[in-house]
Amino acid sequence: MSRPGLILKLSCPDQAGIVAKIANYVAGHRGNLVEFNQFSDQLGSKFFARLEIETADLDVDVQDFMDGFGTLGRSLQADWHFRRLPYRMRAAVLVTKTDHCLNEILWRTELGELPVEITSIIGNRPNCRPHAEHARIPFHLVDMDADKPAGFAEIRKLLREQDVELVILARFMQILPDDFCREFAGRVINIHHSFLPAFIGANPYQQAYERGVKLIGATCHYVTADLDAGPIIEQEVERVHHFHTPADLVRLGRNCERNAIAKGIRYHVHDRTIIDGHRAIVFPD
Amino acid sequence: MSRPGLILKLSCPDQAGIVAKIANYVAGHRGNLVEFNQFSDQLGSKFFARLEIETADLDVDVQDFMDGFGTLGRSLQADWHFRRLPYRMRAAVLVTKTDHCLNEILWRTELGELPVEITSIIGNRPNCRPHAEHARIPFHLVDMDADKPAGFAEIRKLLREQDVELVILARFMQILPDDFCREFAGRVINIHHSFLPAFIGANPYQQAYERGVKLIGATCHYVTADLDAGPIIEQEVERVHHFHTPADLVRLGRNCERNAIAKGIRYHVHDRTIIDGHRAIVFPD
Amino acid sequence: MSRPGLILKLSCPDQAGIVAKIANYVAGHRGNLVEFNQFSDQLGSKFFARLEIETADLDVDVQDFMDGFGTLGRSLQADWHFRRLPYRMRAAVLVTKTDHCLNEILWRTELGELPVEITSIIGNRPNCRPHAEHARIPFHLVDMDADKPAGFAEIRKLLREQDVELVILARFMQILPDDFCREFAGRVINIHHSFLPAFIGANPYQQAYERGVKLIGATCHYVTADLDAGPIIEQEVERVHHFHTPADLVRLGRNCERNAIAKGIRYHVHDRTIIDGHRAIVFPD
Amino acid sequence: MSRPGLILKLSCPDQAGIVAKIANYVAGHRGNLVEFNQFSDQLGSKFFARLEIETADLDVDVQDFMDGFGTLGRSLQADWHFRRLPYRMRAAVLVTKTDHCLNEILWRTELGELPVEITSIIGNRPNCRPHAEHARIPFHLVDMDADKPAGFAEIRKLLREQDVELVILARFMQILPDDFCREFAGRVINIHHSFLPAFIGANPYQQAYERGVKLIGATCHYVTADLDAGPIIEQEVERVHHFHTPADLVRLGRNCERNAIAKGIRYHVHDRTIIDGHRAIVFPD
Repeated sequence: MSRPGLILKLSCPDQAGIVAKIANYVAGHRGNLVEFNQFSDQLGSKFFARLEIETADLDVDVQDFMDGFGTLGRSLQADWHFRRLPYRMRAAVLVTKTDHCLNEILWRTELGELPVEITSIIGNRPNCRPHAEHARIPFHLVDMDADKPAGFAEIRKLLREQDVELVILARFMQILPDDFCREFAGRVINIHHSFLPAFIGANPYQQAYERGVKLIGATCHYVTADLDAGPIIEQEVERVHHFHTPADLVRLGRNCERNAIAKGIRYHVHDRTIIDGHRAIVFPD
Repeated sequence: MSRPGLILKLSCPDQAGIVAKIANYVAGHRGNLVEFNQFSDQLGSKFFARLEIETADLDVDVQDFMDGFGTLGRSLQADWHFRRLPYRMRAAVLVTKTDHCLNEILWRTELGELPVEITSIIGNRPNCRPHAEHARIPFHLVDMDADKPAGFAEIRKLLREQDVELVILARFMQILPDDFCREFAGRVINIHHSFLPAFIGANPYQQAYERGVKLIGATCHYVTADLDAGPIIEQEVERVHHFHTPADLVRLGRNCERNAIAKGIRYHVHDRTIIDGHRAIVFPD
Repeated sequence: MSRPGLILKLSCPDQAGIVAKIANYVAGHRGNLVEFNQFSDQLGSKFFARLEIETADLDVDVQDFMDGFGTLGRSLQADWHFRRLPYRMRAAVLVTKTDHCLNEILWRTELGELPVEITSIIGNRPNCRPHAEHARIPFHLVDMDADKPAGFAEIRKLLREQDVELVILARFMQILPDDFCREFAGRVINIHHSFLPAFIGANPYQQAYERGVKLIGATCHYVTADLDAGPIIEQEVERVHHFHTPADLVRLGRNCERNAIAKGIRYHVHDRTIIDGHRAIVFPD
Repeated sequence: MSRPGLILKLSCPDQAGIVAKIANYVAGHRGNLVEFNQFSDQLGSKFFARLEIETADLDVDVQDFMDGFGTLGRSLQADWHFRRLPYRMRAAVLVTKTDHCLNEILWRTELGELPVEITSIIGNRPNCRPHAEHARIPFHLVDMDADKPAGFAEIRKLLREQDVELVILARFMQILPDDFCREFAGRVINIHHSFLPAFIGANPYQQAYERGVKLIGATCHYVTADLDAGPIIEQEVERVHHFHTPADLVRLGRNCERNAIAKGIRYHVHDRTIIDGHRAIVFPD
């Protein structure tokens, strides 16, 4: 992701010859296709692709290359999206009290694993402020108790002001209102601390304990207006035993949560996900 | 499990000194404790244990050893159970069409992994008859379509006649009536082809496909009158991707199902499970 | 794999425009690309691809389509290979005493998971003969004790006579001679009962026990003249504990072995593997 | 681990009646056994146990309880060890450049998952100094390049001065001299970035890449004078593919390393490990 280049993400109705048309466009302008992932959904008659293109030898300006693709894209009735590399996506992290997911995101960002620029950390509790200060990222405390709609209005104002492209719910214990979900559709990632669709809603570890499951999990998914029902990007599980208390499940589950959200963010930021209704296509790296 | 010996399984209200009392009883009669698993449930104030005892040097007859435990057992207000080793449990396998779980059970039984004696294979479809014949196990075709209660009555009659101790639902696509569940409480093991409590009921792989999960699973559990809600013994998962069709999930899930049911049966037959309300304590081997 | 179509597998030096050229060839003859996997090895400057092409609408005969690709293939300095679908590969299974891998292969073949036609089962011990008979597959007992070279000569004669395309070593406890490896290069698949490169050679479970590992494994790989050093296709692991004896490791390891060899065969037969020196590229399904 | 209590860890030659004797001693003084893990190694004729005892109702002073056990312990020819709870073990972390394992340890310590008191962070490179400063832990830079023996002498002096009970090699890229290993036998934990015994020594991820393995791993083990051959406490693996470069393996492996070392430390500090020659018995929590 550090080379100059482009990512092209595309979905369209399936038909013969799509790969040739797209590859021709790239090769015709001397783009070098270094990675090409494709999925022809035979059940849904749809075509999905992600291309990673080196642009050093392009015979046209990169902007012209992107603009010029429109003729083909429209003829394919495609949705498509280009992204210039290297890229760091502007992301805000929303938190409440627990900090393990935030910590993981900060740590991986610093390490270079997650190409994001964290514009701000927004919390409805002050617990995570020290992490923000240590990482020199602005922290915004937003009260959600007195007037929830006002709280959400304040958050959305912050996100707009900061040109946030990705909203990460890192154990943010609030349900987003519908219009929030619509405004940021496909751009809000949540971590749910269960193996969805099991244990939707509150206290999933307590629910898991009571049900006596032998594996717990965490699910990273896009947020939609349906609670915990958005397209799943990544899931992780961990084996548990009868002697684990709900507190143990919380402890063991943190690993699942941290890994799932880190992978989910990475896939999203690298444009490795394509939302298709209730499902997410993921080309992993 | 091939040595002469005893398994003692016990549960009782927790109190100090239980381990000493039990171990004293064993040692006092020159039993040799080769495996001792214990669980003090601090949340429920209950005590659970499983002991494996070599009886070669007992100073009393094995039957007297078992009978004599009653004084202690009653004083602990315990439920307990002895089993003489080696032991082969009389089990019936109920099937419909698919044979992969049955196959796995037959194969592991022949290999000596599962100490069961399969008294019969009972099917509401004839598909599995050839497996029964090859394994020289009686096959009973029971019609469940014309008159379901009559079908279940016939099955229960077979189970009683054959002194069946364990009923294995190896992809038996019928919901057991309540009185069946009560009669064989704690003695019916089912494999459900999902990661419970996700995707209860019919067509879990189709449900999993539509939900777009990234891991599928299978759950081996005791059957109760609540559909797919009995105590879980074992769960297995397998990673899946967007390109997997429902048919692929069926294929990949077979592995989970086979492993989960084989482990579940093994744990049950080795008395490594203790049912505690909605949960199962499992001391794995 | 049941549709009429073609698989094209190809490797060549990397250069810009390969995807376009190949896709153009396919589209130019009205082939429909339903799956396209590609790997540009930036470290080795090589290009690898696997295409699955529906041929129903080809504007030329399938044979002409394959022949006509030669001009492009040669200009890319490529190694390539077409296979017509549906296809069942002629495979021989070599065994010694243990039958679990053989069983798995027979079971999955019958189920349709493995598109192979098993021409024969060849054993240097008679143990697996009943499985062969039950499956109505010829069994050849080849003595390897008195005169090993003669034994291998006999095996090779059988393989040639039966036009065997794939040799599966399903726990065949003999080291193939170098010239055997050369004659069937890229066409012999072995299952080694360890997580290679750990525990090469004999008694890997005993070695694993003594080393006190916490995970055991199995490795499915192509056989080369270097013992247990051929390109790895698939590996599976299972968690073990201090209380597991070497016999327990054998028991638990069987699962890893069965899964790894079944997946390895499936990938090979579906042309989802490309050997690249010591490594294997695998496009999983 | 936060309740007042004791852990008793014990190993001795196996014989009948050990459990009764130990449990009697505990119960005889009104100790409450809340967890009892036992392992009778039938192959080695040894007995191992770990007991967690609530001491609130002891009829003697805790010190007297521990001292008084000596008569029984000696009669069993046992090695045994008591630890009072709650306990925080004094640990030093040795590092070179990479910080992910250190980070994980600091984070889990702060969270309360690891009951250690980190006395110091010792590095032969200055890279991890900022982490030490942020966590308000002394950082010692020890030069290992000019005079390695002098460097190790300095480290040992620090460890002795600080009464360090546990030495954690958190990607410390130096081989400990034999006398160091002897002085701290059973008290040095290392993380090796491979699935041991595969890829001993330097650059295991590069080795793994070249061998083309399909799973990479990390191993947390006790350090002995034999390089990477000490008793294994925990191992973790992660699936990798042909498209992963050595740099990707480094990235993916970090997860394995972090989890394995965190679990290994936790097991050690909670006295859940017993070293038995080349192997480690681990009673997980």
